[in-house]
Amino acid sequence: MSVNVAIVGATGAVGQEFLTVLAERRFPIANLTLWASAKSAGKKFEFAGKTLTVRELTKDSFKDVNIALFSAGSSISREFAPAAVSAGAIVVDNTSAFRMKQGIPLVVPEVNPDQIAKHNGLIANPNCTTIIMTVPVWPLHKANRVKRMVISTYQAVSGAGAWGLYELESQLKAYAAGQPIHREKFPHQIANNLFSHNTPIDVNGYNEEENKVINETRKIFSDPKMNITITCVRVPIPRAHCESINLEFERPMTPEMVREILSKAPGVKLVDDRAKNHFPMPLEASGQDDVLVGRIRQDISRDDGRGIDLFVSGDQIRKGAATNAVQIAEKLIVS
Amino acid sequence: MSVNVAIVGATGAVGQEFLTVLAERRFPIANLTLWASAKSAGKKFEFAGKTLTVRELTKDSFKDVNIALFSAGSSISREFAPAAVSAGAIVVDNTSAFRMKQGIPLVVPEVNPDQIAKHNGLIANPNCTTIIMTVPVWPLHKANRVKRMVISTYQAVSGAGAWGLYELESQLKAYAAGQPIHREKFPHQIANNLFSHNTPIDVNGYNEEENKVINETRKIFSDPKMNITITCVRVPIPRAHCESINLEFERPMTPEMVREILSKAPGVKLVDDRAKNHFPMPLEASGQDDVLVGRIRQDISRDDGRGIDLFVSGDQIRKGAATNAVQIAEKLIVS
Repeated sequence: MSVNVAIVGATGAVGQEFLTVLAERRFPIANLTLWASAKSAGKKFEFAGKTLTVRELTKDSFKDVNIALFSAGSSISREFAPAAVSAGAIVVDNTSAFRMKQGIPLVVPEVNPDQIAKHNGLIANPNCTTIIMTVPVWPLHKANRVKRMVISTYQAVSGAGAWGLYELESQLKAYAAGQPIHREKFPHQIANNLFSHNTPIDVNGYNEEENKVINETRKIFSDPKMNITITCVRVPIPRAHCESINLEFERPMTPEMVREILSKAPGVKLVDDRAKNHFPMPLEASGQDDVLVGRIRQDISRDDGRGIDLFVSGDQIRKGAATNAVQIAEKLIVS
Repeated sequence: MSVNVAIVGATGAVGQEFLTVLAERRFPIANLTLWASAKSAGKKFEFAGKTLTVRELTKDSFKDVNIALFSAGSSISREFAPAAVSAGAIVVDNTSAFRMKQGIPLVVPEVNPDQIAKHNGLIANPNCTTIIMTVPVWPLHKANRVKRMVISTYQAVSGAGAWGLYELESQLKAYAAGQPIHREKFPHQIANNLFSHNTPIDVNGYNEEENKVINETRKIFSDPKMNITITCVRVPIPRAHCESINLEFERPMTPEMVREILSKAPGVKLVDDRAKNHFPMPLEASGQDDVLVGRIRQDISRDDGRGIDLFVSGDQIRKGAATNAVQIAEKLIVS
């Protein structure tokens, strides 16, 4: 069975990764169409030996489309996803537009694949930071309930979009050449600097990115009482997010138990070589789908043996976005 | 009263900062001598309008020296600090050689200045990550005991020494020029990457840097039961460390109480503008002595009101090393 696939936001960082991931995974495509704003219409990309031309997205773009992969921002999803669903497509939406809506599945295939079948035409792909954390934490949570998490992130610039990568590279080149550094879209200089995540602060003092991780994780884990505090930080890294995660379990948990569980967990790769000081790094996580996990150790600030620290790194454009959405699409066509 | 000062390790990152900080603070110097290894002997530096020549450190270097500021590595301190003390100098040692030794004061002047008078010729300057965290946390701890801390760090390359900065810059220049990136002293590429702190992992699974922060903080706070877990990470930033800090207090604590206390705390500057998304950043902390504190908010993962999150940034070469040592020296000559 082959299906017709539409990519909405085809020229963005995630849109481009959709092309790579669909090809790599030999997704059974009958016809692939690429959609973007009028500004990007006419751009051409190669896929499976054919040249595809990006067209301007309209509400009529979805005739005969079976699966529409949306990644063009929340407002575009809000405006056009209903049209896609009306036309008979199933939308896998990579924006935050529908994630917290009741009745819309929010899916990480390694965590809650059973939710996929409950869709009414629309499935939401979680935030990248949420996905990268839930893949390794879920199998631990199943074995021994996680009562509370304290997370600090190290987020790559391309998480903000292709422009984030461009801005970091432009600033690094200016710095290397001894020229003045210009800031464009990020609120602060990013080369040689880091800053609190560039999303607005909500009334509870957390920024939007942090509240997304908290709320989405509760929905994905079906655990509305999951306690999470998180600090999201943008760092001068091109690609792949890292997260320093402190876990409090319901019962005692040892590093050996964690390693045993994670060594068998789907989507996880242990990188935890203490002798060689080799742990998860963005440079090694970039371009792969597994979430790297290391620095697994007993939290010595607790004397009840219920604390574990770990450090993870995952490619936020692949597993944090494109791969996760394509995995959902794969399960849609099998089911 | 003017005193004779010796700087041991004068050509290093901290050694050079000693020259800047002593001049800026108009430290009352009668005679300043600079010491380093044979390799660096002969190098010349300006200080207060005079040209000083670096000489090779020997055990006879400390005749007539009143205060010796050591920052040339632990093994040099272990070998030469006793000679300095024997010659009548008071040593302020910036290495880890003596920090945890009983009877040797470990001092952050904003926290435990009373310990300075208890010295027997030697006072230890804490680890930079310890200093930057203890300056803002101490006044909170005094008001409402901190029972537990969960810390994740974002540490600048110059914390490893002047070579760390050189290695980052060389790699960034190679990257900007499209040339291959060479690794020299860091265990992994640092440009466009980050990694778990480059110190060996101890038997408890924490690295040396993490264990230093845990043990030193307990000594400085005179609170051997202080519970701390910490993950130390090296990031591609030239200068100034950041720390994401989650605090659990004995009694309920509000963000307003924290702001009120920190607005009056010595060595602290609040940078906490939610509307402008302006919080502590290494770019703004670099070159100043205050520790910047922001992202102050109630930890919503606790329902007992006893949790606070904050994010800090401090110049690890100034307040984290040179300035802290010179502050100690100032208190020595006043007392």
